[in-house]
Amino acid sequence: MSLLGLSRQLGEALRARGLTITTAESCTGGALAAALTAVAGSSDYYPGGVVAYSDRVKHALLGVSWDVLNGDGAVSEACAAALARGARERVGVDLALATTGIAGPSGAEPGKPVGLVYLALAHARGVECHRYHFDGDRAAVIATATQVALALALTWLAIDQGG
Amino acid sequence: MSLLGLSRQLGEALRARGLTITTAESCTGGALAAALTAVAGSSDYYPGGVVAYSDRVKHALLGVSWDVLNGDGAVSEACAAALARGARERVGVDLALATTGIAGPSGAEPGKPVGLVYLALAHARGVECHRYHFDGDRAAVIATATQVALALALTWLAIDQGG
Repeated sequence: MSLLGLSRQLGEALRARGLTITTAESCTGGALAAALTAVAGSSDYYPGGVVAYSDRVKHALLGVSWDVLNGDGAVSEACAAALARGARERVGVDLALATTGIAGPSGAEPGKPVGLVYLALAHARGVECHRYHFDGDRAAVIATATQVALALALTWLAIDQGG
Repeated sequence: MSLLGLSRQLGEALRARGLTITTAESCTGGALAAALTAVAGSSDYYPGGVVAYSDRVKHALLGVSWDVLNGDGAVSEACAAALARGARERVGVDLALATTGIAGPSGAEPGKPVGLVYLALAHARGVECHRYHFDGDRAAVIATATQVALALALTWLAIDQGG
């Protein structure tokens, strides 16, 4: 399914359940927000989000602790979870999607290759995190991470909210 | 020039002058951040930004006053300027680009048609604002606003920074 189709489907699912969503993006850099807002009427369920590229913005705008940023690092499950939790709380919504990873071509470290991406979804009862290793160049990693993030929220809505 | 080409050129201009930039997006909804971060190495000059779709997010995350939001309205020169100023200060960068407008198809008001877009650029000496009326559907308005915003920053760098 196209990114726009997926985004439209997520919008319909959110609207049907009366839920709102926000985004905290590191590696997708705004592509997730752009996908959500490409749908007309998305302001009904998407009030906005944060592109948190630098550690300082992750901390200042979304409250990710320096312990997490300096310990686990920005590309980690702990950081993805903190981004999602911080965004959900600060934007004041039901759900928050967070992305952090290495889109490449540079930025790889031992144990953290290009294409490594953590996605997190924060909801009323906690946060779920997933680790992926996506193929391809920078554009492909960003596009895939965006698509999978939308699918993650859709799946959660289908399972958790009963359809 | 393609969006990616324009973004790459802006990145080179910023890098050459040792300047950083952020984004405060209403009507472009993340497309401007996505264009900036599509360029490899953009984290050197782009620490992140905010997608401020709702009035509450414009106020809470970027400090746009309720006087502006309730008086001039979200789609106004005053709001564009406040978004740019707020983002520049809160993200702690040299330049901030802000977008606010009506991407459509809904949202038009008397005197504020679909395609009306305000772009603002905040820098060390103040803010400059421009008013546009772009043609086309939602996707076209978003794409054009994104492209013109990048061009606005490039032009300012060329004129103001002598390059």
